Amino acid sequence: MDGMQLGMIGLGRMGANIVRRVVGDGHTAVGFERRSEPLEELSRELGERFHPTTELADFVAALQTPRVVWVMIPAGATGTAIDEVAELLEPGDIIIDGGNSRYHEDIKRAEQLRPKGIHYLDIGTSGGVFGLARGFCLMIGGEAEQVAHLDPLLKSIAPGVEAAERTPGRTGEPSASEQGYLHCGPAGAGHFVKMVHNGIEYGAMAAYAEGLNILHKANLGSTHAGEFSAEETPLEHPEYYRYDIDIPEVTEVWRRGSVVASWLLDLTARELHADPNLDSFSGRVSDSGEGRWTIDAAIDTGVPAPVLSAALFARFSSRGEAEYSDKALSAMRKAFGGHNELSGG
Amino acid sequence: MDGMQLGMIGLGRMGANIVRRVVGDGHTAVGFERRSEPLEELSRELGERFHPTTELADFVAALQTPRVVWVMIPAGATGTAIDEVAELLEPGDIIIDGGNSRYHEDIKRAEQLRPKGIHYLDIGTSGGVFGLARGFCLMIGGEAEQVAHLDPLLKSIAPGVEAAERTPGRTGEPSASEQGYLHCGPAGAGHFVKMVHNGIEYGAMAAYAEGLNILHKANLGSTHAGEFSAEETPLEHPEYYRYDIDIPEVTEVWRRGSVVASWLLDLTARELHADPNLDSFSGRVSDSGEGRWTIDAAIDTGVPAPVLSAALFARFSSRGEAEYSDKALSAMRKAFGGHNELSGG
Amino acid sequence: MDGMQLGMIGLGRMGANIVRRVVGDGHTAVGFERRSEPLEELSRELGERFHPTTELADFVAALQTPRVVWVMIPAGATGTAIDEVAELLEPGDIIIDGGNSRYHEDIKRAEQLRPKGIHYLDIGTSGGVFGLARGFCLMIGGEAEQVAHLDPLLKSIAPGVEAAERTPGRTGEPSASEQGYLHCGPAGAGHFVKMVHNGIEYGAMAAYAEGLNILHKANLGSTHAGEFSAEETPLEHPEYYRYDIDIPEVTEVWRRGSVVASWLLDLTARELHADPNLDSFSGRVSDSGEGRWTIDAAIDTGVPAPVLSAALFARFSSRGEAEYSDKALSAMRKAFGGHNELSGG
Amino acid sequence: MDGMQLGMIGLGRMGANIVRRVVGDGHTAVGFERRSEPLEELSRELGERFHPTTELADFVAALQTPRVVWVMIPAGATGTAIDEVAELLEPGDIIIDGGNSRYHEDIKRAEQLRPKGIHYLDIGTSGGVFGLARGFCLMIGGEAEQVAHLDPLLKSIAPGVEAAERTPGRTGEPSASEQGYLHCGPAGAGHFVKMVHNGIEYGAMAAYAEGLNILHKANLGSTHAGEFSAEETPLEHPEYYRYDIDIPEVTEVWRRGSVVASWLLDLTARELHADPNLDSFSGRVSDSGEGRWTIDAAIDTGVPAPVLSAALFARFSSRGEAEYSDKALSAMRKAFGGHNELSGG
Repeated sequence: MDGMQLGMIGLGRMGANIVRRVVGDGHTAVGFERRSEPLEELSRELGERFHPTTELADFVAALQTPRVVWVMIPAGATGTAIDEVAELLEPGDIIIDGGNSRYHEDIKRAEQLRPKGIHYLDIGTSGGVFGLARGFCLMIGGEAEQVAHLDPLLKSIAPGVEAAERTPGRTGEPSASEQGYLHCGPAGAGHFVKMVHNGIEYGAMAAYAEGLNILHKANLGSTHAGEFSAEETPLEHPEYYRYDIDIPEVTEVWRRGSVVASWLLDLTARELHADPNLDSFSGRVSDSGEGRWTIDAAIDTGVPAPVLSAALFARFSSRGEAEYSDKALSAMRKAFGGHNELSGG
Repeated sequence: MDGMQLGMIGLGRMGANIVRRVVGDGHTAVGFERRSEPLEELSRELGERFHPTTELADFVAALQTPRVVWVMIPAGATGTAIDEVAELLEPGDIIIDGGNSRYHEDIKRAEQLRPKGIHYLDIGTSGGVFGLARGFCLMIGGEAEQVAHLDPLLKSIAPGVEAAERTPGRTGEPSASEQGYLHCGPAGAGHFVKMVHNGIEYGAMAAYAEGLNILHKANLGSTHAGEFSAEETPLEHPEYYRYDIDIPEVTEVWRRGSVVASWLLDLTARELHADPNLDSFSGRVSDSGEGRWTIDAAIDTGVPAPVLSAALFARFSSRGEAEYSDKALSAMRKAFGGHNELSGG
Repeated sequence: MDGMQLGMIGLGRMGANIVRRVVGDGHTAVGFERRSEPLEELSRELGERFHPTTELADFVAALQTPRVVWVMIPAGATGTAIDEVAELLEPGDIIIDGGNSRYHEDIKRAEQLRPKGIHYLDIGTSGGVFGLARGFCLMIGGEAEQVAHLDPLLKSIAPGVEAAERTPGRTGEPSASEQGYLHCGPAGAGHFVKMVHNGIEYGAMAAYAEGLNILHKANLGSTHAGEFSAEETPLEHPEYYRYDIDIPEVTEVWRRGSVVASWLLDLTARELHADPNLDSFSGRVSDSGEGRWTIDAAIDTGVPAPVLSAALFARFSSRGEAEYSDKALSAMRKAFGGHNELSGG
Repeated sequence: MDGMQLGMIGLGRMGANIVRRVVGDGHTAVGFERRSEPLEELSRELGERFHPTTELADFVAALQTPRVVWVMIPAGATGTAIDEVAELLEPGDIIIDGGNSRYHEDIKRAEQLRPKGIHYLDIGTSGGVFGLARGFCLMIGGEAEQVAHLDPLLKSIAPGVEAAERTPGRTGEPSASEQGYLHCGPAGAGHFVKMVHNGIEYGAMAAYAEGLNILHKANLGSTHAGEFSAEETPLEHPEYYRYDIDIPEVTEVWRRGSVVASWLLDLTARELHADPNLDSFSGRVSDSGEGRWTIDAAIDTGVPAPVLSAALFARFSSRGEAEYSDKALSAMRKAFGGHNELSGG
């Protein structure tokens, strides 16, 4: 095989690393980006196998038909970028949204592009800053024919079967899913699966975070004995909470042989090794949409999601969004019990 | 009947108001308290039907046998007080713990007092600062014979059947439960039922508080349109959140005819009328034990309590107790996504 | 006052009872309904002050201008009914949606009717089967001028100030909110506030239900001692769970003087008095939209709603919707621990 | 090094596999077990490096001093076994509880054994049925001196540093934590950390399970369109739920390169490959204590644990424990709204 050609709109960290994996695996790439630094950096690194462009017309002109146009820019700007490039494409060309769009958008875009003969794929892309080395996990929505056509590129971007031990019972030629990419269904299916992936991510992250917080408080019987105010519940058994746990070491030991070993734990151990008390963080935790949409989907379809929603709401609370609720609770407590609030901390 | 006599140890707000209701209903009372003001105040108010004492021996001496000794002091001091007075009592006397002890204690105390022939009742007492006017709801644990003996006193303390419309189907002589007091079972049963009452209270309070917070944010489409940072999820439909809701008025309107009408709502409306933006509260919400013990009981007995536990944990979070969890989440997000935290607020 | 005239489309329980309250308070009403029984029943009851119609044209013709058309039919049919009647109305007429529409619809409908000069109000109506006697709590969205015009009708439908003690600090002429109706804001605001009302209702209901379940299991130490299988966690302290609680009696006693006294509790006590073991219920709990939409709104606006969402998800679970999740958990437990599932039932 | 000697009480799967790892790494072992098969099997496999015994006195006599006695039997029987063997031991000997005892017990046992000069270690042991191949993750509580003495054995049981890539920043001689074992603190600390490990495990499992359930329902718009009863909320946008997701393939693709890659996911993919619809499971999910105790610890120390508790309660619900709550909800809905329950499914 002589290699395929990938067109990439947006050479931020994700876009650039996808280009690097593709070119590094024998394909060529055309990149479009308004900022010159990423273009220059990739040109230096990849040489003539990478073609930089700063005008969309040049980008489109440099692509062989059927063109493969991967859009990898922030969700807010994706719609406009797709509209602009679609104006310049021809029937048979393929547009890929590799960003974090809501899958509702994919359904609309695929329908809008269909009359023009332009194919549309949504590819939920997981891997973050580690994707270059680790490969990207690709969850793909769209028509099967286009997915098949892109197979060589997808294989180069994905981690490959050797990235994990094979699942017992899976033998012979590894499936695409074992390589790390999967055609999940028609338009939107890729971002739908990626959305649920992120919903799970929120839940799993919160599970670790809550557990570590319990370890963090495991010495309360030593540190707070006898200091409870009238509005606090004293420890009934301070003798049960006299452990000064080394949390970075605990996350490290769990990485090998335990049931909770995971990539998230690897990262947690890494951060805790570098910053054992997490002093560099304030604890205001953002959310980027997918966690919310996952709960919306759970509600629409009647699926109980108490864990995933609790994880989302804990993020909201971390940003002070429970303040009005909390004041209302204090108001009620004052009203029926004459309780005064604890003074602030 | 000529009226009974109640001995009360502890003349704080709750104890004093129980004495007032009892004396006001034709009984007499002996009070023990180390501070002189409450004794003087009650003496002025109640005249010779109230006997103040400042020494435990005098208190016990002033009581007719079988003595009725109601202990109404903070949970932390109750055990010692009961031990001290029990030394001075005789077989057949009755000790009542009307405070917020954990019901485990009641089981122990009843056993310890049994060999001495002293009867022990635990009476979970609800009503707070409104109990004088409204009557106290009494949840009673202990032996049936003593509960029957105390019936005239309990009836005076409880609200009485006229405090609410009778439940359809309940006719004839009102039951004790309809008067507002109930023998729930053997030792500990009163505080057990009171504990669950408070667990429910936490959940119901949180339901109102969360709902009001949604009303509080109902204008987000007007106030925050276009101001979302890269780390925030923008409103997909700002046009759906352009309501400037008058929350004090909403709580008022719900008081009549709605499904969520309740005493907690009455109190909420009252506080919001006095302080429409809840500016006098900081939002650090205490918890006093019962909410925690309710979840412990749910876990012991395998009862799903997602709502009651979420309410309890929201209180913990209001006091900053999620901080370490939140920092751990931020650390993970930084590690896999290179996300920076939102700057603090 | 000579009274106003109300047109009612839909004479089911809610519509008919609103008509009854209005006519009973000195107004007149025109009713439209395809089924003849409700029309005949109301005519018998209300005499000439009620004008029954079975054709929409007759209904419209019988109304004085500006016409007041209250639509009180199932949410699914409301849109069509409004479209049909709007065709027959004139500028200045008023359409009211008193059902359980999502407030998004109200915003759209108000805009669609505006060019025709037809005014639109959304009135969230709480009160259920008790509304006739108790009055209906009305949460109103739309233009202030129309709400003012309808004031006499709204006052007749609402419970009136005497339905609850006045909130301390509220004196003088009772406000509309104290009468039980409130203009909450522009189009949609009424259904928005009603939606949040129902969200709170779900949470408060779940708080009671979970608490009662703990009482229900309070005898586990007697009933299950020693019968735990290898896959169950035995009770560490069976002696703490030896209470045979009379739950109907507990709900009755809480009705007077307790912090959790509420109308929902009144109803619970009533049902438990009639069916002490709840044998007539299967426990499959429906949800009708508002609870879901409340969580959607919480997520959109970034409000933590762990209690309200847990209540919603518990309903989903009650209908078996967690089955696939649960099987996945069992599969994982088998995989890492060799655990076999408990056998059913 | 000549190797150490391990005494093992209990040769079930866990105990036998620990013996295999120890003997396989150059140590010797003495085993005590009442059933003859495991003894014979291990003798066949391990030859003279394994000494089988069926009498406790023989077991103790076969051990060199200071004896190392690892007790690996069900939690319920551990206390008695330790008492029995402790009678036969001498000062300086070491007892290890490698099972799933609650850490409260460890604190008591260490104190009981101290006057006899017997050392006590609690070792939370994770690894399940895969421990033989994968190594066991060991979380250790007790005195530092004994942990140091046992280092060669612990190293043989643990997975070893090569089981995962080293955490960036960790260089030089791998720490014990990097080998997969960790001295967490004094008596109980090992089981405390193991308890929190299992609490996290419950939360992470639930995150996957809920996410997979959403995928499972992603085709609701196709399968249920138009079939909603009056008591169901119809899908507002059926077009958003028309995905027939291959869940086994999704779990496989997430194993490589995604953020949610983990050992639990590996196992889930394995089970789903073998049983794609999870037909062999009923969905009644047990819990074995640690998850409950984790929430108890969170409550005692004031740590918000909404995710871990929701995971625990979902297991309770899976076993039908919400039934009474659900009936109570149905009763309330009937009471205020006249709603009938959905008929069973």
